[in-house]
Amino acid sequence: MNPEVLGALLAQVRDGTVSPDEAVVALRDLPFADLGDARVDHHRALRQGFPEAVYGPGKTAEQCSRIVGELLERGNGPVLLTRSTPEQTKAALAAHPSGTATGTTVVWRKAPTARREPVLVITAGTADGPVAEECAVVLDAFGVNVQRVTDVGVAGLHRIVPHLDDLANATVVVVVAGMEGALASVVGGLTAAPVVAVPTSVGYGAALEGVTALLAMLTSCASGITVVGIDNGFGAACAVLRLLGPSA
Amino acid sequence: MNPEVLGALLAQVRDGTVSPDEAVVALRDLPFADLGDARVDHHRALRQGFPEAVYGPGKTAEQCSRIVGELLERGNGPVLLTRSTPEQTKAALAAHPSGTATGTTVVWRKAPTARREPVLVITAGTADGPVAEECAVVLDAFGVNVQRVTDVGVAGLHRIVPHLDDLANATVVVVVAGMEGALASVVGGLTAAPVVAVPTSVGYGAALEGVTALLAMLTSCASGITVVGIDNGFGAACAVLRLLGPSA
Amino acid sequence: MNPEVLGALLAQVRDGTVSPDEAVVALRDLPFADLGDARVDHHRALRQGFPEAVYGPGKTAEQCSRIVGELLERGNGPVLLTRSTPEQTKAALAAHPSGTATGTTVVWRKAPTARREPVLVITAGTADGPVAEECAVVLDAFGVNVQRVTDVGVAGLHRIVPHLDDLANATVVVVVAGMEGALASVVGGLTAAPVVAVPTSVGYGAALEGVTALLAMLTSCASGITVVGIDNGFGAACAVLRLLGPSA
Amino acid sequence: MNPEVLGALLAQVRDGTVSPDEAVVALRDLPFADLGDARVDHHRALRQGFPEAVYGPGKTAEQCSRIVGELLERGNGPVLLTRSTPEQTKAALAAHPSGTATGTTVVWRKAPTARREPVLVITAGTADGPVAEECAVVLDAFGVNVQRVTDVGVAGLHRIVPHLDDLANATVVVVVAGMEGALASVVGGLTAAPVVAVPTSVGYGAALEGVTALLAMLTSCASGITVVGIDNGFGAACAVLRLLGPSA
Amino acid sequence: MNPEVLGALLAQVRDGTVSPDEAVVALRDLPFADLGDARVDHHRALRQGFPEAVYGPGKTAEQCSRIVGELLERGNGPVLLTRSTPEQTKAALAAHPSGTATGTTVVWRKAPTARREPVLVITAGTADGPVAEECAVVLDAFGVNVQRVTDVGVAGLHRIVPHLDDLANATVVVVVAGMEGALASVVGGLTAAPVVAVPTSVGYGAALEGVTALLAMLTSCASGITVVGIDNGFGAACAVLRLLGPSA
Amino acid sequence: MNPEVLGALLAQVRDGTVSPDEAVVALRDLPFADLGDARVDHHRALRQGFPEAVYGPGKTAEQCSRIVGELLERGNGPVLLTRSTPEQTKAALAAHPSGTATGTTVVWRKAPTARREPVLVITAGTADGPVAEECAVVLDAFGVNVQRVTDVGVAGLHRIVPHLDDLANATVVVVVAGMEGALASVVGGLTAAPVVAVPTSVGYGAALEGVTALLAMLTSCASGITVVGIDNGFGAACAVLRLLGPSA
Amino acid sequence: MNPEVLGALLAQVRDGTVSPDEAVVALRDLPFADLGDARVDHHRALRQGFPEAVYGPGKTAEQCSRIVGELLERGNGPVLLTRSTPEQTKAALAAHPSGTATGTTVVWRKAPTARREPVLVITAGTADGPVAEECAVVLDAFGVNVQRVTDVGVAGLHRIVPHLDDLANATVVVVVAGMEGALASVVGGLTAAPVVAVPTSVGYGAALEGVTALLAMLTSCASGITVVGIDNGFGAACAVLRLLGPSA
Amino acid sequence: MNPEVLGALLAQVRDGTVSPDEAVVALRDLPFADLGDARVDHHRALRQGFPEAVYGPGKTAEQCSRIVGELLERGNGPVLLTRSTPEQTKAALAAHPSGTATGTTVVWRKAPTARREPVLVITAGTADGPVAEECAVVLDAFGVNVQRVTDVGVAGLHRIVPHLDDLANATVVVVVAGMEGALASVVGGLTAAPVVAVPTSVGYGAALEGVTALLAMLTSCASGITVVGIDNGFGAACAVLRLLGPSA
Repeated sequence: MNPEVLGALLAQVRDGTVSPDEAVVALRDLPFADLGDARVDHHRALRQGFPEAVYGPGKTAEQCSRIVGELLERGNGPVLLTRSTPEQTKAALAAHPSGTATGTTVVWRKAPTARREPVLVITAGTADGPVAEECAVVLDAFGVNVQRVTDVGVAGLHRIVPHLDDLANATVVVVVAGMEGALASVVGGLTAAPVVAVPTSVGYGAALEGVTALLAMLTSCASGITVVGIDNGFGAACAVLRLLGPSA
Repeated sequence: MNPEVLGALLAQVRDGTVSPDEAVVALRDLPFADLGDARVDHHRALRQGFPEAVYGPGKTAEQCSRIVGELLERGNGPVLLTRSTPEQTKAALAAHPSGTATGTTVVWRKAPTARREPVLVITAGTADGPVAEECAVVLDAFGVNVQRVTDVGVAGLHRIVPHLDDLANATVVVVVAGMEGALASVVGGLTAAPVVAVPTSVGYGAALEGVTALLAMLTSCASGITVVGIDNGFGAACAVLRLLGPSA
Repeated sequence: MNPEVLGALLAQVRDGTVSPDEAVVALRDLPFADLGDARVDHHRALRQGFPEAVYGPGKTAEQCSRIVGELLERGNGPVLLTRSTPEQTKAALAAHPSGTATGTTVVWRKAPTARREPVLVITAGTADGPVAEECAVVLDAFGVNVQRVTDVGVAGLHRIVPHLDDLANATVVVVVAGMEGALASVVGGLTAAPVVAVPTSVGYGAALEGVTALLAMLTSCASGITVVGIDNGFGAACAVLRLLGPSA
Repeated sequence: MNPEVLGALLAQVRDGTVSPDEAVVALRDLPFADLGDARVDHHRALRQGFPEAVYGPGKTAEQCSRIVGELLERGNGPVLLTRSTPEQTKAALAAHPSGTATGTTVVWRKAPTARREPVLVITAGTADGPVAEECAVVLDAFGVNVQRVTDVGVAGLHRIVPHLDDLANATVVVVVAGMEGALASVVGGLTAAPVVAVPTSVGYGAALEGVTALLAMLTSCASGITVVGIDNGFGAACAVLRLLGPSA
Repeated sequence: MNPEVLGALLAQVRDGTVSPDEAVVALRDLPFADLGDARVDHHRALRQGFPEAVYGPGKTAEQCSRIVGELLERGNGPVLLTRSTPEQTKAALAAHPSGTATGTTVVWRKAPTARREPVLVITAGTADGPVAEECAVVLDAFGVNVQRVTDVGVAGLHRIVPHLDDLANATVVVVVAGMEGALASVVGGLTAAPVVAVPTSVGYGAALEGVTALLAMLTSCASGITVVGIDNGFGAACAVLRLLGPSA
Repeated sequence: MNPEVLGALLAQVRDGTVSPDEAVVALRDLPFADLGDARVDHHRALRQGFPEAVYGPGKTAEQCSRIVGELLERGNGPVLLTRSTPEQTKAALAAHPSGTATGTTVVWRKAPTARREPVLVITAGTADGPVAEECAVVLDAFGVNVQRVTDVGVAGLHRIVPHLDDLANATVVVVVAGMEGALASVVGGLTAAPVVAVPTSVGYGAALEGVTALLAMLTSCASGITVVGIDNGFGAACAVLRLLGPSA
Repeated sequence: MNPEVLGALLAQVRDGTVSPDEAVVALRDLPFADLGDARVDHHRALRQGFPEAVYGPGKTAEQCSRIVGELLERGNGPVLLTRSTPEQTKAALAAHPSGTATGTTVVWRKAPTARREPVLVITAGTADGPVAEECAVVLDAFGVNVQRVTDVGVAGLHRIVPHLDDLANATVVVVVAGMEGALASVVGGLTAAPVVAVPTSVGYGAALEGVTALLAMLTSCASGITVVGIDNGFGAACAVLRLLGPSA
Repeated sequence: MNPEVLGALLAQVRDGTVSPDEAVVALRDLPFADLGDARVDHHRALRQGFPEAVYGPGKTAEQCSRIVGELLERGNGPVLLTRSTPEQTKAALAAHPSGTATGTTVVWRKAPTARREPVLVITAGTADGPVAEECAVVLDAFGVNVQRVTDVGVAGLHRIVPHLDDLANATVVVVVAGMEGALASVVGGLTAAPVVAVPTSVGYGAALEGVTALLAMLTSCASGITVVGIDNGFGAACAVLRLLGPSA
């Protein structure tokens, strides 16, 4: 209930068209989200620059398609379908043909790219690509200027040198790395920008499906690195959108 | 080597006062950090708003005291001694009496508090206090406007309600919670601001000394939350300083 | 051996038709379960309101079908086949057509819904649905009045508000949640009713196939929450049936 | 805000002594907990039969003592101090001499024992005693009729036989066991009552400080057992109080 | 080199037909296994009553078949192919038709059943059957008198009562159980015979693919239980064969 | 109730001095352990060659001393106090001076050493000594002929060679090893006797306080090795006593 | 930039054909790897005897084929494709038919076998073969004299005896073992040569997919053993190539 | 038995002073280590350049002192006492005053430093110092030319640049790092020399007492790195001594 609605109700009480008792009932049943303007502002803020996203796993292709439709009707910002299976993608694009699929992410109503300073999305190896791409596609959908830097694992440190200026100038840096995840520490020492580290399940054996990279990033000797869950490119993108704020 | 130094060297080569061979030797031995102006800028950026901090564990009281002295001489920003034992604190304050100790953190040359919009540091329970305080003291040392919200664990959800506007208006929110760490998810759903979650080792048994809270925060159903290591209040403060940027 | 049988045997001893030695042999071979009336009552109690259930995994379709038949013959309460594969379901329903399949659970002789106050089964996300449904179907089979509340994950806390009265009035609340499992803590703080938490394997990476939710629920800051195993909707239903008692 | 207060406010609006705008402000700032009578009832319910408890760890003796004082003033039910150190206990009893300390729990204003049917608290070995005692003392503080059954580990199964009737008649059974925690499964098969299992950190080596017992209880072959965290006797007592309900 | 061979060599040295230097060379090259009669005896002992077994995984069907053939030629005791795939089984039986396949084990030249006192192989649930059967088939191949007791999980303790005498009289008891593995503790308290516990990967979620049962068995409150690896029915059988000795 | 007592009761029924109803009550209350002669035999068997042992941890010195006294009075075999603290040992020996303390084990009424063939207790390193000694002292208390072989870790394989005959002739071999526990595998390949492996918490870092040795022993490439819990020398001794049987 | 290039640039500055400012720009943009001759030598060293290898997983068959082509063009040493799928192998060999596939490794331009002293690659069991073969094929590609010793698991210690001289004479020994990995400890005690241990995921249950072997090798009682990741035959080969040095 | 002894024995047989039967007995009882010259050579090789070291933990000060004395008498190379407590160090130096204590390592008869090319021992942070020093002291005892490079953690990558030539020229590089252990990967990419990585238990929380660094080093993206156990500076030194060979 936004303040106007609340004011209107109170005016009705004042005018006697609604009794105090009836108003008590009405107010008690109001959803939390409508308690007052702070919450509405807050909700508006949450919606600004934040994904209206459908998480594919566990839903039928038909469900995905229908929810995408509802989101497209409800707002006017970007709409995403994430971790989509080929069947889900196919069904959703058949029903809503204006979308574009990249990897397992489908985007409708991509915002125009508006930011000057780029967000760097850096990968340690080619196998980290799909997770980085999930992150980049979501950022791209919200008009963020994304710069991809690929395959700069720390075993070939010279490969990161051409990007030293990019690191120094970036608004935010997302580091996507599996195996031992050391790239996050190295990057953290080369930039004062916020660093969001995404461990990936790339590697085998002692890589423990991403747990090793996760732990390594959490214990990085470079201060101030923050970490999201394993393979969570979407989560990293949301963290960046939070950083960039509603005017992003 | 900043460009001026590099230019001077090259000018000496041009003028014949330094031979090309001598210059080759000089250049090859230059520390990486002085390769060019980008790096200098970058390093200046790193120094701006970033802690000159001494990590206490594993150092003697005398070592702590001496390094603090060197940092105080070298720059003019805040200097910190973290995870300091009572002995280290005593020795460091005896040698450099202008500092102030809070918990296990000692701060010299605290910057004046300059920011308008506050950074919220929220704790789930009183036992999470020391970790939150480590974070707050570091932020405070850099002039960040810190607002502490304490003891709003999700089992008493009504306690967070008076802070809904604070959450909506915060620049950044740091959530410090042990046990099951659920507060991070709840806060993540109530603000569009960046959320840095700090798991603590508070709890026993299945809390696994912070691992449970860590895992829970990493798998939060609220998108875009980022996480630092267990009990790492200092790391969370550094992450916030990265977010706020050099003009912080 | 119930008291009557035991008494009869003793009477035979007294009457001399059975010698003391023969009685010793007979008594020694009596199954434990028949030692006395307490045990019989106890077993009757166990049968009252408790599932006669066949656990599908590791059994052939024919075995499932046959055991269901035996249970149908033996008693007159509900009979269940759980974690049933499509083949098992098909075979069992072909042999005993009066059953009804929901998800991977098949129910025969569902009891009429008799309770006034509902048991709430709450899920954090749509992906938790199948586990919650397993719980709800089992409760339903025993005539329990089940109220499903879906998709009230803590990242959208306002969605739980319309159900505050339901929570306050519920006899028991079952919370089904994967990922970080925070919903259990939030619900635990909103009701004084018994809360049975079911961690699910929903999530990926650091969700560790349900272990994260499990640990989080076990360390909940809301006191008095109890937990069953990962994905164990059936176990949660049994726990509820124990709570409701034989008159349930 | 209870309905009367809300009604009064609305009446003031109706009467013109409070303007609708002023009422909007007042309502928006109302704490969540006062939204309406449902919540008040709910909170009253939470207070009924639920511990007003102070968790000792991380608090000074003075803090413990002061909070106990506040709780004693605020209500009229039992007040508890849990996991109390000798110093905390001493200080709290000095300030509030009417309390009684048992193990690490201190109780003030114990309720008279009123229930007929007992709650069984069963331990596998003597080393599990302190955890069981924490549970029993809390229950006792709320007037619950507690029956202690000790040292009936499954390696000596005959020791549980004299308690078969007790198990059959119990309202609730709390099973406290470390090492392999098998007692929970055995008890679960001998009673239809709710079973709350408490794993303890008793044992060494592969007992993994209670994790083994925890996992074993969660995977019990006896259906419908619920589990609380390791060594969490207080949590088990709270779970029982939820089960017994406000009229407990 | 058995003593006769060694004596013959030394005799040749004594007789001068072999020079000391030549003997040094000959002795140095002797395989360890032939060092003296102790070792030969020992090896003979190892072969007595011990499986000549081919472990299927990682071998081609042709390899399995060929090695089985070699073992059949080399000795005259039982020969086994374990963890055999259908293809391996088919190929091996085609080449050596006298064998018999049970589950994933194939046996050739089964010894006649000669022992009087039986070895009990007890399972907690039907799903533990295949592991128990692997154990029983191997024992059976060596003429051990195996008595199978199935489905006596501790949740239905009365089901074990008819077997109390069997437990008391058994030479050895093998307990095969998944989930929480509590049956091992119960059995350990009911017999003074050696108990070999086999944890199985039966169960899901917190059963952790057998790790829970393994840990529970290792921390059993019943003294003197020994444990083999998860699902290792073959290993349990070998342990029993060691216990029964060469005259088994 | 042994058969004589049962027979006497039945005779009383026959004679009319006890009514059938009274007998029903008496029989129903009989402890499980007295149900019949099988059980009595079984219990007698359990007592034969099995430790009457008091586990020290968690008991007061006075409790230990008192229970030892009760056990000394109750039977006439060996009595043990295990994992005894110096205080417990001192108190128990003061009260019952005939005992002998070795490490943390105290033994009263040691049986005369009667067996011919020895049980080998082998340690990998000197640090494994206390665990091995716990095992040896318990065996010794029951008159078992124990032969200690120390410090034969697999890194110096030649040290085991002088003991090849001992291994071949041993009735049972107990292998006590920490770190990587490889000695169990090597010994398992050198003897056909039963091998009981005891992992110890010797080592640091990746030894994970005994978990590494435990896992290694459970996955030994030598078939038929059985394992007890970490540092469980007492458990290994009990396993050996089970193997040797009541006539041990 | 090697010294000549750097000297030439400086000479141009001296000669006035390049201004100091232009030189600053040129130097700043130089890739790290070209900073001076040490680095160039270093890189040359790295290329000498080090694999130009393409890691197959996550790449398309076309990508593999193309990168192999580039590597073949770029240098003149061996080129490898590792962990190649059948599709990748087929495509790469179709495009570059001079290669040879062994297991999942494809080699082009194998160097002639030039070393006298062999590198031993020892396996514990046949199932460890593929990992050992990956190591051997890579070594072979670089002209290393590889000697394979197979199937010498420690349960049959006599099988290693014929290879004692080989162990004593080997330049390096690679030990490949799954299950409990004890072979590494045994070999470490039999040779003074460097030992590189490769844990494999061979085994099931408590072998934990290679973690048990890994931990066991890391805690080996034989000093100076080094370990690579689970199943990492390629990594072991690279470690050996580092040991043998550029003249290898 | 070396060949001469064996030859002498055989000569005695030939001469008739020893009968073949007596020789059989003598040979069978020979320790493995004396089987022939290959083994003697091998053992001589093992002794060359390999530590005669006493591991302190679990030994009394007197035991340490006595074994050190025996080793000093037995050979003429360096003798070490490792992980020595102050008491052990004091006692050993009192008895054998020629030794020198560094940290927890005591060295007697240090070899003269003879090698030209240094072994680099690199640490990530000051807290890793004790582990690195243990390694360096052991190497130093054997005359290895050790070059210490300290405090070059990857967060300040420029600090490693002055050491690029050292890395390129090193015979072997030992990398000692805790926390996320990323330095091993960076170093591995900067040198073609063998890299032995030592994870340390430095760090807290998610550093998991060294497990994170261990896992990270094992999954390094730099090929050919080998790893020793957590905090195992002694083991790393032994690995280096193996690499350098007997002529080291």
